[in-house]
Amino acid sequence: MALIVQKFGGTSVGNPERIKNVAKRVAGYRAKGDKVVVVVSAMSGVTDNLIKMAKEIMPLPNEREMDVLLATGEQTTIALTAIALHALGVPAVSLTGAQAGIVTDGVHTKAKIQNITPRKIHELLDAGQVVIVAGFQGQTIEGQVTTLGRGGSDLTAIALAAALKADLCQIYTDVDGVYTADPRIVPTARKLDEISYDEMLELASLGAKVMQSRSVEFAKKFGVIFEVRSSLNDNPGTIVKEETKSMEGIVLRGVSLDKNQAKITLVAVPDKPGVAARIFKAIGDANVNVDMIVQNISHGSGTPATDISFTVDKPDLLKAQKVIEALRQEVGFGKVISSENIGKLSIVGVGMKSHTGVAGKMFENLAREGVNIDMISTSEIKISVVVDLAKGEQAMKAVHAAFLG
Amino acid sequence: MALIVQKFGGTSVGNPERIKNVAKRVAGYRAKGDKVVVVVSAMSGVTDNLIKMAKEIMPLPNEREMDVLLATGEQTTIALTAIALHALGVPAVSLTGAQAGIVTDGVHTKAKIQNITPRKIHELLDAGQVVIVAGFQGQTIEGQVTTLGRGGSDLTAIALAAALKADLCQIYTDVDGVYTADPRIVPTARKLDEISYDEMLELASLGAKVMQSRSVEFAKKFGVIFEVRSSLNDNPGTIVKEETKSMEGIVLRGVSLDKNQAKITLVAVPDKPGVAARIFKAIGDANVNVDMIVQNISHGSGTPATDISFTVDKPDLLKAQKVIEALRQEVGFGKVISSENIGKLSIVGVGMKSHTGVAGKMFENLAREGVNIDMISTSEIKISVVVDLAKGEQAMKAVHAAFLG
Repeated sequence: MALIVQKFGGTSVGNPERIKNVAKRVAGYRAKGDKVVVVVSAMSGVTDNLIKMAKEIMPLPNEREMDVLLATGEQTTIALTAIALHALGVPAVSLTGAQAGIVTDGVHTKAKIQNITPRKIHELLDAGQVVIVAGFQGQTIEGQVTTLGRGGSDLTAIALAAALKADLCQIYTDVDGVYTADPRIVPTARKLDEISYDEMLELASLGAKVMQSRSVEFAKKFGVIFEVRSSLNDNPGTIVKEETKSMEGIVLRGVSLDKNQAKITLVAVPDKPGVAARIFKAIGDANVNVDMIVQNISHGSGTPATDISFTVDKPDLLKAQKVIEALRQEVGFGKVISSENIGKLSIVGVGMKSHTGVAGKMFENLAREGVNIDMISTSEIKISVVVDLAKGEQAMKAVHAAFLG
Repeated sequence: MALIVQKFGGTSVGNPERIKNVAKRVAGYRAKGDKVVVVVSAMSGVTDNLIKMAKEIMPLPNEREMDVLLATGEQTTIALTAIALHALGVPAVSLTGAQAGIVTDGVHTKAKIQNITPRKIHELLDAGQVVIVAGFQGQTIEGQVTTLGRGGSDLTAIALAAALKADLCQIYTDVDGVYTADPRIVPTARKLDEISYDEMLELASLGAKVMQSRSVEFAKKFGVIFEVRSSLNDNPGTIVKEETKSMEGIVLRGVSLDKNQAKITLVAVPDKPGVAARIFKAIGDANVNVDMIVQNISHGSGTPATDISFTVDKPDLLKAQKVIEALRQEVGFGKVISSENIGKLSIVGVGMKSHTGVAGKMFENLAREGVNIDMISTSEIKISVVVDLAKGEQAMKAVHAAFLG
């Protein structure tokens, strides 16, 4: 008898019919004698609709209230999923994040899980119930509703798997697993049987839409082996686990394109110590995540000045711009140029550590396609470039063809 | 500086634009220096849509899960209303029923408020916040989400007004106040300036859609004077309060038509002591509210038997039928006939106590319209008859014309 955590995303629970299908799958596992904890997201479209309504009222709504608002999405799904299990004769109980014992810090819309007290879940499992937990949400110790930010439901599943010492954690999604590239963009993309946490981490943080990096980080930290698989069929998915020897033989694991970044360039920033620190400290304090940062060497005559470019998540652009403008007097930079029309193209593979010439080959292929490179950033196992959004998919296909066929 | 509780129903908060209007009104009161607690319902259509989805999955969904599901409706509205106040520069905080300290019993979908600990609300008001509370919901002492049933948001408002010792409680709705009849059906209906709790209670329990009886009962019990008024204009509404001498001069206060009842008739029920008790005890145990009961005198030859008819809320019909069928062996009745095609027409007025011939005049007018009377039930200040649903509005107009012009 295994204890399984199964997570179903917004598409898998997108309407009552699909929720019934999820219930059938869950009931199948339970019929084999497994204890099942189900984590669900908001039905697809629901969260976007809630955000749309809030923004109709105010462009930059208060984050505490956004959490109260968005938490309703998953709460709706848990109740419907429990009802769908009842319809199959399977005892099931829904729990909100708070009821499931998920305690977070107080950073609204991006809360971090501080601890999980799974007592209630264990009690219910022992009583023969399937336990349906709302993903993406928790509660502060003071009783404030919080949400975990994008990819929060995956995080809930993996954190619960760790806290419950689950035997298996399955992340159900609308794709068959992790691919060498998004098959909707690159038709020749292949499904991977396994991938290391680090590769998955890079792919996740780079916009391969399967999972957010923080969930993978969490899984890596607590050694939670998980499977990414489809809720539409019974095909085995991709196992995500610690790196093995055999993985290093492969140069590239995958190619990803992140269209959800925006770029901000500060022109003529005074080139003196502490300026960059001041800027990025202020942005960090506003809980805006900065991804790539590029600073050119000081040039020109007169007072030494430089241009600083960086990328943030598109939804944070407005907030980042406000932070920047508030620093104008103090820091004294020139124009601020922002663009949402960028794409970040990345290649990832642990094999990169032991193979050379990878960057050259990537850049050469981009040049051949007439794709201009705007920013470059690299790590041990990945190379990312920022390109014009309009050329992103073309660039991705070319790079995938060059490395992965 | 007054403490005001304002309640806005589903139509008043039906979309972001209307929520902004609610916020403007609230901000106006606050600008005068008042402390304001706002109670809101789910946006119109939201609750029905949630129920529809649940029933698509299972015709008779579990009530605990229905509460988890339906509570999301009001939670959505509180967040959006708080954001709308922020947009006007007014500090505001949303609270779910649980966060507002509303503790209920554990009867899901029809929970009763057991007590309210308004400490948190007082703290927030003292800190200059407008406090937005989710109507219709609470939490058991064990942390289960509960809802209060139909009209629950009014109840929340009145219970909060009592607990907070508010100076004023305003129930905003889409009509200008309490009318002598539903003006959508009877064009000559007039708005009342004031009405007694008892009259309002009868009207409420009889389907005048302005308010549910339990809210009025609660107000009467705790002496909460409240005003029913429109969220679409600034007209004064109808004040609901204890009966005064002057009210008795008026024979009839209003006419109402309840289309939300269903009738069940048990044919050939053995006429022996304890049978009715057994039936209605079982229905009560299932938390189904029975309104009218009519039992005819035993007749026919052989074993004495009688027919028993009663009405329940339409949504409870299926549940009531199940309870009845479960009793068939034990009680031994014949056919069970159910009908949703009924309307309950009622006339109400404290003046009825001191005026005679009211019933005769009502029945005479119905006969003139060719309306058959199915069941009759009376109290000191009201007379109700069950008629064919199709003739309900015609009957209502005739009776209103006869008594109220």
